[in-house]
Amino acid sequence: MPYDRLDKDVAMMKATGINVVRIAESTWSTVEPQEGVFDFSHIDRVLNAMHQGGIQVIIGTPTYAVPTWLVRKYPGVLAITPSGPNQYGARQNMDISNPDFRQHAERVIRAMLAHVKDHPAIIGYQVDNETKAYNTAGPAVQKLFVQYMQKKYPSLDALNLAFGLDYWSNRINNWDDFPSTVGTINASLGSEFSKFQRQLVTDYLAWQAGLVREYKRPGQFITQNFDLEWRGYSYGIQPDVDQMAAARALDVAGIDIYHPSQDQLTGTEIAFGGDVARSLKAGQNYFVIETEAQGFPQWVPYPGQLRQQAFSHLASGANMLEYWHWHSIHNSAETYWKGLLSHDFEPNPTYDEAGTIGRDFQRLSPQLVNLKKTNQVAILFSNEALTGFKWFSFGWGAKENYNDVLRPLYDALYRQNVGCDFVDPSSPNLAQYKLLLVPALYAAPTPLLERLNQFVRNGGHVVYTFKSGFSDENVKVRATRQPGIIAEACGVTYSQFTLPVGVALKGDPYQVGTAHNQVMTWMELLTPTTAQVLASYDHPVWGKYAAITQNHYGKGLATYIGCGTSAAVTEKIVADAVQKAGLWGPDQQAYFPLITRSGVNQQQKKVHYYFNYSAAPRTLPYPYGPGQELLTSTAVAKNQPLQLAPWGVQIVVEK
Amino acid sequence: MPYDRLDKDVAMMKATGINVVRIAESTWSTVEPQEGVFDFSHIDRVLNAMHQGGIQVIIGTPTYAVPTWLVRKYPGVLAITPSGPNQYGARQNMDISNPDFRQHAERVIRAMLAHVKDHPAIIGYQVDNETKAYNTAGPAVQKLFVQYMQKKYPSLDALNLAFGLDYWSNRINNWDDFPSTVGTINASLGSEFSKFQRQLVTDYLAWQAGLVREYKRPGQFITQNFDLEWRGYSYGIQPDVDQMAAARALDVAGIDIYHPSQDQLTGTEIAFGGDVARSLKAGQNYFVIETEAQGFPQWVPYPGQLRQQAFSHLASGANMLEYWHWHSIHNSAETYWKGLLSHDFEPNPTYDEAGTIGRDFQRLSPQLVNLKKTNQVAILFSNEALTGFKWFSFGWGAKENYNDVLRPLYDALYRQNVGCDFVDPSSPNLAQYKLLLVPALYAAPTPLLERLNQFVRNGGHVVYTFKSGFSDENVKVRATRQPGIIAEACGVTYSQFTLPVGVALKGDPYQVGTAHNQVMTWMELLTPTTAQVLASYDHPVWGKYAAITQNHYGKGLATYIGCGTSAAVTEKIVADAVQKAGLWGPDQQAYFPLITRSGVNQQQKKVHYYFNYSAAPRTLPYPYGPGQELLTSTAVAKNQPLQLAPWGVQIVVEK
Amino acid sequence: MPYDRLDKDVAMMKATGINVVRIAESTWSTVEPQEGVFDFSHIDRVLNAMHQGGIQVIIGTPTYAVPTWLVRKYPGVLAITPSGPNQYGARQNMDISNPDFRQHAERVIRAMLAHVKDHPAIIGYQVDNETKAYNTAGPAVQKLFVQYMQKKYPSLDALNLAFGLDYWSNRINNWDDFPSTVGTINASLGSEFSKFQRQLVTDYLAWQAGLVREYKRPGQFITQNFDLEWRGYSYGIQPDVDQMAAARALDVAGIDIYHPSQDQLTGTEIAFGGDVARSLKAGQNYFVIETEAQGFPQWVPYPGQLRQQAFSHLASGANMLEYWHWHSIHNSAETYWKGLLSHDFEPNPTYDEAGTIGRDFQRLSPQLVNLKKTNQVAILFSNEALTGFKWFSFGWGAKENYNDVLRPLYDALYRQNVGCDFVDPSSPNLAQYKLLLVPALYAAPTPLLERLNQFVRNGGHVVYTFKSGFSDENVKVRATRQPGIIAEACGVTYSQFTLPVGVALKGDPYQVGTAHNQVMTWMELLTPTTAQVLASYDHPVWGKYAAITQNHYGKGLATYIGCGTSAAVTEKIVADAVQKAGLWGPDQQAYFPLITRSGVNQQQKKVHYYFNYSAAPRTLPYPYGPGQELLTSTAVAKNQPLQLAPWGVQIVVEK
Repeated sequence: MPYDRLDKDVAMMKATGINVVRIAESTWSTVEPQEGVFDFSHIDRVLNAMHQGGIQVIIGTPTYAVPTWLVRKYPGVLAITPSGPNQYGARQNMDISNPDFRQHAERVIRAMLAHVKDHPAIIGYQVDNETKAYNTAGPAVQKLFVQYMQKKYPSLDALNLAFGLDYWSNRINNWDDFPSTVGTINASLGSEFSKFQRQLVTDYLAWQAGLVREYKRPGQFITQNFDLEWRGYSYGIQPDVDQMAAARALDVAGIDIYHPSQDQLTGTEIAFGGDVARSLKAGQNYFVIETEAQGFPQWVPYPGQLRQQAFSHLASGANMLEYWHWHSIHNSAETYWKGLLSHDFEPNPTYDEAGTIGRDFQRLSPQLVNLKKTNQVAILFSNEALTGFKWFSFGWGAKENYNDVLRPLYDALYRQNVGCDFVDPSSPNLAQYKLLLVPALYAAPTPLLERLNQFVRNGGHVVYTFKSGFSDENVKVRATRQPGIIAEACGVTYSQFTLPVGVALKGDPYQVGTAHNQVMTWMELLTPTTAQVLASYDHPVWGKYAAITQNHYGKGLATYIGCGTSAAVTEKIVADAVQKAGLWGPDQQAYFPLITRSGVNQQQKKVHYYFNYSAAPRTLPYPYGPGQELLTSTAVAKNQPLQLAPWGVQIVVEK
Repeated sequence: MPYDRLDKDVAMMKATGINVVRIAESTWSTVEPQEGVFDFSHIDRVLNAMHQGGIQVIIGTPTYAVPTWLVRKYPGVLAITPSGPNQYGARQNMDISNPDFRQHAERVIRAMLAHVKDHPAIIGYQVDNETKAYNTAGPAVQKLFVQYMQKKYPSLDALNLAFGLDYWSNRINNWDDFPSTVGTINASLGSEFSKFQRQLVTDYLAWQAGLVREYKRPGQFITQNFDLEWRGYSYGIQPDVDQMAAARALDVAGIDIYHPSQDQLTGTEIAFGGDVARSLKAGQNYFVIETEAQGFPQWVPYPGQLRQQAFSHLASGANMLEYWHWHSIHNSAETYWKGLLSHDFEPNPTYDEAGTIGRDFQRLSPQLVNLKKTNQVAILFSNEALTGFKWFSFGWGAKENYNDVLRPLYDALYRQNVGCDFVDPSSPNLAQYKLLLVPALYAAPTPLLERLNQFVRNGGHVVYTFKSGFSDENVKVRATRQPGIIAEACGVTYSQFTLPVGVALKGDPYQVGTAHNQVMTWMELLTPTTAQVLASYDHPVWGKYAAITQNHYGKGLATYIGCGTSAAVTEKIVADAVQKAGLWGPDQQAYFPLITRSGVNQQQKKVHYYFNYSAAPRTLPYPYGPGQELLTSTAVAKNQPLQLAPWGVQIVVEK
Repeated sequence: MPYDRLDKDVAMMKATGINVVRIAESTWSTVEPQEGVFDFSHIDRVLNAMHQGGIQVIIGTPTYAVPTWLVRKYPGVLAITPSGPNQYGARQNMDISNPDFRQHAERVIRAMLAHVKDHPAIIGYQVDNETKAYNTAGPAVQKLFVQYMQKKYPSLDALNLAFGLDYWSNRINNWDDFPSTVGTINASLGSEFSKFQRQLVTDYLAWQAGLVREYKRPGQFITQNFDLEWRGYSYGIQPDVDQMAAARALDVAGIDIYHPSQDQLTGTEIAFGGDVARSLKAGQNYFVIETEAQGFPQWVPYPGQLRQQAFSHLASGANMLEYWHWHSIHNSAETYWKGLLSHDFEPNPTYDEAGTIGRDFQRLSPQLVNLKKTNQVAILFSNEALTGFKWFSFGWGAKENYNDVLRPLYDALYRQNVGCDFVDPSSPNLAQYKLLLVPALYAAPTPLLERLNQFVRNGGHVVYTFKSGFSDENVKVRATRQPGIIAEACGVTYSQFTLPVGVALKGDPYQVGTAHNQVMTWMELLTPTTAQVLASYDHPVWGKYAAITQNHYGKGLATYIGCGTSAAVTEKIVADAVQKAGLWGPDQQAYFPLITRSGVNQQQKKVHYYFNYSAAPRTLPYPYGPGQELLTSTAVAKNQPLQLAPWGVQIVVEK
């Protein structure tokens, strides 16, 4: 802070309805200015001021950025990545497996928690922040990896076979010879190392959570701030963390969600991140630990947008909404990542709009909090598939990754107002869904694929994309006809594939017009065994092969998409699957930019959110039983048109 | 040289009117072939031959490129940059602060100067060449930086506050912990390191100049070959040197100016570089130490262009014009950077045209040399603002830099034939100007901004662009409403800004047509307090904010440009400011490609240069009192049309 | 292999007509699992199975990829390149000059050869694979380079003069000071280092061949798998190997050729690679060691293409055709570089088509094998010119390289069905050709250029492109008018050149239309002395200069192309040269996509191949004496139309 204004800040927070803040994350150099010397006076001041103001506090452990003295004394705390040793300066540059880092992290965490643990303002703790392994890959980490491999592969022969290491003389005949994986050209080995790095994250968060658990009071929670694949905004599944596994050590899942705004605001990332976060703890409500206030210059919200975003988070099941950050920062890297307040600390339109959110939350919380959602559609994602796909995707030099396949499926659901959960290979509850969408399940163990066959056999519906089932969990391509094990449920096989050049779907089967009917990025030359052909290729040579198929198997139905399709075609395929699964309902009368999300509140009432993600006013008929629109406190009858303002929201609770 | 032809070279130089050469720069490995062994025979040969031919010589100290033996014995002379240690081969790869480098540089300079100092051919010395710190940033340099910081910030607390180092745990609690700045994410720290690097250059050049001053004879000058931001040609303010400060140790400012040619020749860079160089020593005439002869393949001049360029340099106040280089080089990096002679050493069209220049210079020198210019417009540039802006500019990933804001203002003056000087925060003489153009004064100390307010209050006119006044000299954003201190003179405030997408100026206020009326790169959401709105945004949401304002303050006028504008709009804004400052005169009847530049010669006569920067003949009326056109020796009456050939020039001296 | 199926593989190979396999390359870690411990059981198994199946075997030495234990024990075997030390993982990462590598390579080669040498299945050996120096440039290599330079340049003064090292103080005054060439900016020094690296390859292959020669039986051959410049496919002359020199140690030249397929299949690379390989051993037949089966996803062949490609190789003089590889690999880097079999090991369309090739080869071999070709046109290429050109090409930042000049000349011949050989500066047999095409002979020693003048004087025809003759063998630009020595034969000079912007050939002299008539990339401002002007520039300033000239000199004719021309213009220039050399014959009635290639078979009969490189059926009249079409066993009369299917082939043997 350029000057002291804590009381003024608390007053302004209260004025805008803020009732919780998160502090202490990234403050290691302040709370432990020299090794073993602690100074928690800043934290005390803030805790007291907040408590006095009636604002609750989440304490973050301060380990996300390391102090100068630690690096000077123990240079090894900086991770060595494939690009070389990290330099001091940035956050997230440490080796989370380094013993010196762990020892000093433990000391500062324990000292801080011992100091604050009895303070009444504290409602919970966040362990670290946006934790990953930061691609730590130096000699010490390599040693840990070899130990991990020795445990996993008692026999080197088995390892050499499973990973195909004979190729290019990469065979390892002695554990002492195990080379650094940094230079590996073996996707199996490289993917295993990525899995090991994700395990480091899981272990590290569990270790921090264990420390905190020794100090926390009953009723206080432990959370983490997970994040998503970053493309300048939160785009897709996080490649570097096995969030399902990591979340097991937490009480509540937290997430940060940043998204395009202004004319690019669609709500998709809010829904996506929320659906992921909610799925991490079996449908339990989650926290939005960070989202943008003013954000980047190009994200300054239009009037109404901040408010619309806030309710969108609630509509996905969020129980808390925190902005990064309160005020804009005057120095360093995030100067132009602006908070609720600008650098001048004065009210501004964004801050003012936040006040309306605060007041509405206060008033409506009893009806909105703890929203429960029960979806019958799930997307099956897999970190193993993601990593394996990264090595190969669509041929050398291709830039698309796993999320480029997953997101279009998600977006197709979102735009058609079909709610969904996320499951992964560890999920025990596949049977509770009627429809699974399975993008590019490139690397998968046999039992998982057999479970999916069984899921269909039992009456489930599945939509697979190309490349699913292609290799086993070690990224070894299956030595059977493709798509391997799932060929049974899908009723289709292929042994050749190519890249589409000027290829379309024959006869525009989804009636989307020439531009949207093109085949993109990949095409498998499918031959149905028992499947029905939904689409085939329009091409002089490849015309005899199927592009998209559907197969009745047991009591269920499996759709297989053998090629890259436009968003328009993907939506049609997904719509067909939703319909055939018997899930096409009243919500599907609305289509983006009219978005509806729903759930059941604490009073066991159905709550329906309606959003207009556009700059023009829009109307849609409310299709459910009589209810109450909460923001305007007006009654709504079935089929009554709801008038949605530009970037507007309405919330109807059924009676 | 592939073979000895010194006498032939001297004869050809004389034939083309060359009367000065620059030698010895970059020859360290020749003049000191082994440590402490000196051989100046090459220099002696050339000095004698030139003297005999009546050609004067500038001796360059040879330190710009280091010899092989020095690097082998003292590897530390090669700079360590953020990319790692430099390798032997290129020039400008050394650490100019390295003691071994300095010691050996001093020895060779002293030996060379002691050897040549009495030679009558020598008219002056150049210290080093295009000197910079070459981003030297290794441990030894870091240690010097910490000493510099200790001197500047007696208190670490003050430093931590000024630079905001608490953020991301970057706080420094002990000088011993001071981390390398190479990895810093703190723009304040990074910018201070850049300032420190510029100080290294200032100190180094002053040190070399001090050495030379011990040997030089009275009447001999010391110069440097400054250069500009390089974009494949000389584009803008040099980021890595504080040229105002560095020039203080010199007797004459020198500069190299390279520019596009053929159909892309506009004269802008010649004028820009000249106006910068002339401003470095308070309006004193300067040397063009290097400019292109044939240059790059794409720069081979069209007939007339070499001549036009030569007089353009004189029109800016140059007192010397040297080509890089005499003949083209047969080996190594600059083989395709061609001199007056091609590799065949024979006359060619470029050499032949140079001969006409030499003859005209010889004939007209008494009337053309020592041209004095008195401008009432200045551009205020700032190395601190430039560096701070580099860290942030227009959002993450933006490629524009400070010069992308400065050059359009300069170009607007140039194209409208308004002469200008350059001033920087150290300039004491702001009051001598009627109009200051201030591009992106991003980082600036309070006293400077107060001086600028005072300048307006006293009757001065200022044009500011967006982002001016935003942060203090430490790149800490001001914690007041923006634009901070200058808001007082500008009568406008803002606390939000965004990126323009499809935004124009409402109602095309400058009548430039749709394409030129677009807002680009940046837009501040301005609210006038006392200012008049010159333009506001055409946008459904941002339409209520001002884009460009103008404010009467005291006796003066402050224009504030809150957004990126097209060259056309920028010209209109600048024209308006020039007019309101009472500076719109006869020269403004001409517009690019007709360019006029003027001054007063040694006879106290007004000299007007007229250039046609186009491939078609053009005419313009001569608007001043009766004069004499020098090149044709014909009288010119007021309002008489001057006929300018393609790429032509005329020079009128008023009677 | 995911499971053992050797017998099945042999059976499937036999079924498709495969009669030779190549094994053991890249298997070092398998055959020597620990230092000095050998296990050749895999090789024995395969040798025995192949022998039993009647399939012959080529044994590759296993040195192309190093085992983990070798790198652990002797880290120095990994090359240090300008990017730093290589990492373990990839193939081709070693320093082929490293003594530890050489010692262990020798041991494993000797052990393997001693073990297998008596096996009857073996018909020959391949030494290493696609060998290069992999840019090895570490201190040990630098030491070897300095020794090489000391031998070549007894006097440092001579070296400094030849390479122009005085420039930028790069002068070397003592051998001990010789700096690493890694950072050099001196193109002469850099090019010499590249030549030295190519010498390492020549020496290394000769050394391996010498080892094999100690073991091989009479009648067994030694070959290498050379490859071409790689642009995602085999594009041009290999920059990193002096293949003419390296081939001297071999009995048979081998090459790998990969090329675009599907709609991009033209046959050009097949012909190019074949013409190069055939020229390496003075017209002797060569082996296609590797070419694509399914290849990359985008290369999956259309029906007919695999077959067409196979016969195209034979038409260039190949005596063997091997696919990379038999089956697709289930792990690691080349998973998507697919073999004849997909990962499922089952028959597929590509495998099936290979069967037709096998059957036809078996049946027609006596008439097709050992095809001898006698061409009267040759392309003169030069590794020295290629390297020198790489340093300069078309100005800083230009991306084109030497092959971008060479390939258009080759393509012009190919598309017009003019057969050619390749020669290089070491070729003694220039006089056997009537026409030489000489692309960008940028660096060349005086005797070579004088030989070329003599070639013309004696009645030869030459087509030179721009930049030929520009510098000597040390990349020192000649200090005479350009194009230096060849100016005599070409009757043209220049001393200036520029880049074309909006320049065309005046009056469209080749009648190719506006688009094809543009001048590209480079233009020399030519003035004929005795030459006739074929084309001049269409440009207001450069219009007085010639662009393309032709000169009678002695009994011959020299064409000089002074600028970058379109493929269409290049074809016309080449056609003109072919015609004037008296070589325009019946084959020139056909034009791409109708391609004909011919030779004389073992029965001394003329064999004519006809290919249709297009997706539409085409007809061309057979212009020679009565013959027999081999694939259909039908008689063909002179001028009878040959019906070529899409991607079809016919082979006519003259009676």
